[in-house]
Amino acid sequence: MSKKYVYLFSEGNKDMRNLLGGKGANLAEMTSIGLPVPRGFTITTEACTEYYNNKESLSEEIKEEILTKVKELEEMTGKTLGDPKNPLLVSVRSGARASMPGMMDTVLNLGMNDEVAKEFANVTQNERFVYDSYRRFIQMFADVVKGYPKSEFERHLDKVKESKNVKFDTDLNAEDMKQITKDFKEIYKKIAGEEFPEDPLVQLLEAVKAVFRSWNNERAIYYRRLNDIPSSWGTAVNVQEMVYGNRGENSGTGVAFTRNPATGEKALYGEYLMNAQGEDVVAGIRTPSPISKLETDMPEVYKEFKRIAETLENHYRDMQDMEFTIENGHLFMLQTRNGKRTAKAAIKIAVDLVKEGMITKEDALLSVDPKQLDALLHQTFDKDALKSGKVIATGLAASPGAAAGHIYFSAEDAIQANKKGEKVILVRLETSPEDIEGMNHSEGILTIRGGMTSHAAVVARGMGTCCVSGCGELKIDEENKTLTLKDGTVYHEKDAISLDGSTGKVYDGELKRVDPSISGDFETFMSWADEVRTLKVRANADNERDARQAKAFGAEGIGLCRTEHMFFEKDRIFNFRKMIMATTVEEREKALEKILPYQRSDFESLYRVMEGLPVVIRYLDPPLHEFLPHKEEEVKELADDLGVKIEELQARIDSLKEFNPMMGHRGCRLAITYPEIARMQTKAVMEAAINVTKEGLKVTPEIMIPLVGDEKELAYVKQIVCETADEIIKQENIDLTYKVGTMIEIPRAAITADKIAEHAEFFSFGTNDLTQMTFGFSRDDAGKFLNDYYAKQIFEQDPFAKLDQTGVGELIKMAVQKGKSVRKDISLGVCGEHGGDPSSIEFCHKVGLNYVSCSPFRVPIARLAAARATICEKKNK
Amino acid sequence: MSKKYVYLFSEGNKDMRNLLGGKGANLAEMTSIGLPVPRGFTITTEACTEYYNNKESLSEEIKEEILTKVKELEEMTGKTLGDPKNPLLVSVRSGARASMPGMMDTVLNLGMNDEVAKEFANVTQNERFVYDSYRRFIQMFADVVKGYPKSEFERHLDKVKESKNVKFDTDLNAEDMKQITKDFKEIYKKIAGEEFPEDPLVQLLEAVKAVFRSWNNERAIYYRRLNDIPSSWGTAVNVQEMVYGNRGENSGTGVAFTRNPATGEKALYGEYLMNAQGEDVVAGIRTPSPISKLETDMPEVYKEFKRIAETLENHYRDMQDMEFTIENGHLFMLQTRNGKRTAKAAIKIAVDLVKEGMITKEDALLSVDPKQLDALLHQTFDKDALKSGKVIATGLAASPGAAAGHIYFSAEDAIQANKKGEKVILVRLETSPEDIEGMNHSEGILTIRGGMTSHAAVVARGMGTCCVSGCGELKIDEENKTLTLKDGTVYHEKDAISLDGSTGKVYDGELKRVDPSISGDFETFMSWADEVRTLKVRANADNERDARQAKAFGAEGIGLCRTEHMFFEKDRIFNFRKMIMATTVEEREKALEKILPYQRSDFESLYRVMEGLPVVIRYLDPPLHEFLPHKEEEVKELADDLGVKIEELQARIDSLKEFNPMMGHRGCRLAITYPEIARMQTKAVMEAAINVTKEGLKVTPEIMIPLVGDEKELAYVKQIVCETADEIIKQENIDLTYKVGTMIEIPRAAITADKIAEHAEFFSFGTNDLTQMTFGFSRDDAGKFLNDYYAKQIFEQDPFAKLDQTGVGELIKMAVQKGKSVRKDISLGVCGEHGGDPSSIEFCHKVGLNYVSCSPFRVPIARLAAARATICEKKNK
Repeated sequence: MSKKYVYLFSEGNKDMRNLLGGKGANLAEMTSIGLPVPRGFTITTEACTEYYNNKESLSEEIKEEILTKVKELEEMTGKTLGDPKNPLLVSVRSGARASMPGMMDTVLNLGMNDEVAKEFANVTQNERFVYDSYRRFIQMFADVVKGYPKSEFERHLDKVKESKNVKFDTDLNAEDMKQITKDFKEIYKKIAGEEFPEDPLVQLLEAVKAVFRSWNNERAIYYRRLNDIPSSWGTAVNVQEMVYGNRGENSGTGVAFTRNPATGEKALYGEYLMNAQGEDVVAGIRTPSPISKLETDMPEVYKEFKRIAETLENHYRDMQDMEFTIENGHLFMLQTRNGKRTAKAAIKIAVDLVKEGMITKEDALLSVDPKQLDALLHQTFDKDALKSGKVIATGLAASPGAAAGHIYFSAEDAIQANKKGEKVILVRLETSPEDIEGMNHSEGILTIRGGMTSHAAVVARGMGTCCVSGCGELKIDEENKTLTLKDGTVYHEKDAISLDGSTGKVYDGELKRVDPSISGDFETFMSWADEVRTLKVRANADNERDARQAKAFGAEGIGLCRTEHMFFEKDRIFNFRKMIMATTVEEREKALEKILPYQRSDFESLYRVMEGLPVVIRYLDPPLHEFLPHKEEEVKELADDLGVKIEELQARIDSLKEFNPMMGHRGCRLAITYPEIARMQTKAVMEAAINVTKEGLKVTPEIMIPLVGDEKELAYVKQIVCETADEIIKQENIDLTYKVGTMIEIPRAAITADKIAEHAEFFSFGTNDLTQMTFGFSRDDAGKFLNDYYAKQIFEQDPFAKLDQTGVGELIKMAVQKGKSVRKDISLGVCGEHGGDPSSIEFCHKVGLNYVSCSPFRVPIARLAAARATICEKKNK
Repeated sequence: MSKKYVYLFSEGNKDMRNLLGGKGANLAEMTSIGLPVPRGFTITTEACTEYYNNKESLSEEIKEEILTKVKELEEMTGKTLGDPKNPLLVSVRSGARASMPGMMDTVLNLGMNDEVAKEFANVTQNERFVYDSYRRFIQMFADVVKGYPKSEFERHLDKVKESKNVKFDTDLNAEDMKQITKDFKEIYKKIAGEEFPEDPLVQLLEAVKAVFRSWNNERAIYYRRLNDIPSSWGTAVNVQEMVYGNRGENSGTGVAFTRNPATGEKALYGEYLMNAQGEDVVAGIRTPSPISKLETDMPEVYKEFKRIAETLENHYRDMQDMEFTIENGHLFMLQTRNGKRTAKAAIKIAVDLVKEGMITKEDALLSVDPKQLDALLHQTFDKDALKSGKVIATGLAASPGAAAGHIYFSAEDAIQANKKGEKVILVRLETSPEDIEGMNHSEGILTIRGGMTSHAAVVARGMGTCCVSGCGELKIDEENKTLTLKDGTVYHEKDAISLDGSTGKVYDGELKRVDPSISGDFETFMSWADEVRTLKVRANADNERDARQAKAFGAEGIGLCRTEHMFFEKDRIFNFRKMIMATTVEEREKALEKILPYQRSDFESLYRVMEGLPVVIRYLDPPLHEFLPHKEEEVKELADDLGVKIEELQARIDSLKEFNPMMGHRGCRLAITYPEIARMQTKAVMEAAINVTKEGLKVTPEIMIPLVGDEKELAYVKQIVCETADEIIKQENIDLTYKVGTMIEIPRAAITADKIAEHAEFFSFGTNDLTQMTFGFSRDDAGKFLNDYYAKQIFEQDPFAKLDQTGVGELIKMAVQKGKSVRKDISLGVCGEHGGDPSSIEFCHKVGLNYVSCSPFRVPIARLAAARATICEKKNK
């Protein structure tokens, strides 16, 4: 039996999302529960896959199936594609399994051509509406199907408006629209080198192929990588009978949410435009009216819409994001989906839905993407700073958050500046899918045009990035890179401003911000996560401040304290450099002796903050040359400070130079060459533990030896650690235990984990290094070629961000199994960047690790991800 | 039952080598077959292990067992340790499972003290002999047991001889010896800070411990690493009743081989010294007489010795190296072992023994260490160069070979110079175990003193290094680093000389040398290896010359042609650099087009030389920055040549800089960014194949993609290769096939080998890179810290020289198994440095690889190693 590639809306339902895409499945579902949905059909995601397998062309089989469904649609509607008297016009829209900005969105009014337009104008007695639809179609077909620059069309439209001295499209009359249509066809011909296609079937098949093609455009690939969507899914295409929001003043179009997507408040929220087609609302061309105004304008329609909204929310048991069109006073539903929302709203909605009895706690946990929490874990403005801050403009509070940084006027500039370490505010007239990567590199986004549902607002909320949109009082000159206030003040590139995404206020300069905390609904929600999860969450923290933050975010210990970070302060680095320059063990020990008190007091404060929770201390890891200067003048200065000859210092710097420092003299290799370093660090760890023990705290230091690749390396360093520690314990005659474990970050360590486990009480997987070695990718260099990998679809994900389960994961599994075979109760954790990545955390849960350790700000994310992993595992059983 | 730690000679036999060491097992064996061996006992290797487990001290149990055996020995000999009237004096000698220079060798005359000496002189009526023995004992005890500098003693002896105006020790009389003994005890006291120990039991236990300690001195560790001996074996200690070669003119001592160890000729070969103790012969203090002279001097003794030698060779079925002592005309055997021999001798002896019916062909193959063949595969002097060469001195032809290089006067200087790439001749008065590492870094060794069995000669033969010894006509000033000829000509450090190890001649300057070939016995021997082995041997060759050499040495194809080596010639690198500087694909293709003809003709010549044998061509591997200059003046020059601005070139160089180039933009990653490079290389490979096919040769190019870590990388590059190749084949309408395979050199490739095998027709394990990534060791940097690893016994072997079977080997096994699970007939090879290392080759055979590929000069070594692997496997079944 051959596959079925096209489904009428009446043939599908909401559970067919994988096949029909989200949009298609929900159109089918709404149809089946009797809501007013214009009729249509969906071309499946499998057809998309088939299209790619077939060298990017539609097979005859699929084409035929499409034509059959067109016939059926014609029968159902009583209209015929291309029939001038009674034309069937359709919209063509993409719709993947997951909602994906960046792909081709919509072509409206397809089926229009000269003959149809002429007759249709006669039949409808509405020439303006018909040619408005036609000119829109030409532009959309040129832009989204053919990829021609839409600016050419827009510029022409602006020129006409200017010559007519009008502001809005709606002020143009039928004759204008007719002329514009004619002009647009000329522009099309000029760019395309051929006539605009008049055959509606050709238009349709071209549009379908364009949707499939858009699945693999650069923006879609980037979005997928960001959101962890496999390229194998493909997209569906929805073909739907047109209804017209641009049919006159009794028509309109809008979008709305069942709850406020910014705050979570339970109330219809959205906006609409009369006499407009869908794109007008989202693109922010005219400023729309709030949905509440519809109640006054068209009370019947509003009432029905409200009923439908409630029905949908109850049906889907989640907040819905809906598109609708009103044609001559009749309401039609064009889309519903679970609405994107800010993190704050997501939490509130989840908690409210549980309270309302709509969903279970587990459903609630599954309804919030852990990555989204990030937005709740970042700073807000200090209250006093806000009070004294100078407001320079106010726009729409499109996506909450507190952003402060330097302004840049293009995505590209924003990316460059951010890569150099600057905090960036992206300022745009309006944003478009091309800007996504730039938005992702920005602290905040400010747009001049566009409403709460504009591209900028929707995408920013999805990203958890602060956004103020529609700030029309500002003037932007993107070319000359200036932003001008009402009072004439001019801001240039790199000037600092701050955005408050919760109030829409824009401030001069960078306002002071304060750390976030977990309270209210968020606290309730996180407590549910803690009830469910079995995986522990620790934090990577090297100092008291980070440790406090981690604890406030619910960390259950420190999984990684990088001791070298403690050496960089002025006094310390001086002695550390003395240590490096030492030519005898005695000299080295003398310098180390001076570092000891600092290190000991650092450890004491960590122990005190963690109040008995585990603290894993990793011994010196980076190569020594990282602690020495490389510029001539700095070398000179240091030589003076250290009291050595420049040549001597330079010789040492040269001798420490390495071809591939990542695989050089670092980690436990340092302790093997200079056991006195490990000895000093052990003293600091143990003496600190003894001091806080005397204060009444219970601590069990966990000492972690980095970069072990052979059991004998660990055995050697462990012996030094134990000799030193045991002697101190004996001298103090105190009851204190400690653990010695190792990082598993060298492939060989994973392969020989059984042997290593004989000496290690715990393993912590250092997935950063393990990823580097397993792939042979230098993290610092791979950026240069990984873009080619994404472009050629060799990689879909950055293995440094998302754990590579096939390769690196296999080594982890092997190490877990071998480690446990020798030491049943071995403690297992992960402390690379991946420890804060939800999909990687799920993997850690599955392979049986005891904990993940991540940066303090990722702790709540990890807690939620861990809970979700437990729930998913249960569901899959 | 407790372990037995001490065995009388009469309790052991030759098969107990693991427990008793080689020396001990053979002393026992000789005893049991009735040869005249002084009585004694052996302390086992297990006692050594126990000593180390017991924090480097002798357990009471072992001490007691030693004392018990001393008692038994006293009963057997009727002598008593420390009894002045009838003293038992003993020798104490180390003896590991494998013979190991570098360890403590021998202490003679142990048991001597003031009282014993006095009475013993009375009893023997030979005061000179007794005090000669005593003073020797003091010096040996101080030197080898206590590690005090022997130079203090030697200097004193020289002074006495000078004052007496005599040349040899033998010219000193009893009174002199008495005085020297007294002086030596004073010197000992001065250095030690305590009296020389008079208690013979203390002397004995100290000596035993010293032997155990010497197992882990630096030289022994180095020697073990060089010869692949595990540190876990430990050494045994042999304690044996003394017989005296220094008892007068009717006494003597010597060493001899049953066949000539330099040539393999069947004839007694060796030397002896009258009125001397063992050390005198080996240390080369007096020049000894050839063994043949003994026939005239002591015909009876000679006859018996000859009989014993024949007995031993027949008994052990191998050439024997024997030590003997004659005491008052009585012959005693002190040692026999399979003699070390030059590669040439090893081959001749093996082939002769097979012809004599003594051993099988398989035994013959097992009797030659593959590494030894290396000596036969290096150059000899050009005949004309020899004729016209200026002989500046002549010494003993101690170890054959042709060496030419710069002279250095200390091991340390030789090592440094060699590390800088110089060919080095080490010139020493005489060598000692401290010099081993320096000898290993030298092309040849020249000594002024010492015979054919001197330290220099024995070690050089073992290493396969050319050596001329005992060249007494030269004068050396080690301090001022000069070598003076008879005619007064002075050579300084870095001056060039040549050594002919087969004639003993020393030449001025560096003589021209010619390539070796395989013929005669060697050819016969290698043909036996080929009959046995199943593993194929290919060569790594990048040019016609190497390919010819490889074929002459029996390579069965090219396993690795590194195409980048072809880009470095002047014309080519210019265009290659143009390619790197190209800013568009078109420019890049234009530059590549110019390289194509060169590359094509290179491949043609390889195909022609290999005459239908497989040729594996690896595509561009190194990062591009390796092809650009880095010095300012070179950059300037190149900018001029290329016609670009210096800043432009510098910017490109900077943009190519990498933090860890080993894990950077190289291998297939280049082909992914610049597919046009792979396209050009494919054109060159295929066009060359077509050209030689038209000449009538049958070729099947094997295209190898480097540095693959993910199946999609291979799939992407393979598609480019296949499209290009298939098009060329189609255009030419020729019947030609080709294979596409990959290197497995990234850990992830091994882990995902099943997926990769879907696209790869062959795997070649790149064990260099695989070792780097698996250990996280940068090959270029690891040298700095690996010495600490050896010193601390964390590593015993350099994993870049000997394949790490535990870690890297595990990945190889995994890849083999996974690869075969998907593609049963996948061809599997190895092409790293390890392809020429015998123990690694054995591993390759065991895990089921089809071939190894190594440098041309290692091909015969690999052939032999492969044969031995097959034989060992059969024996173990």
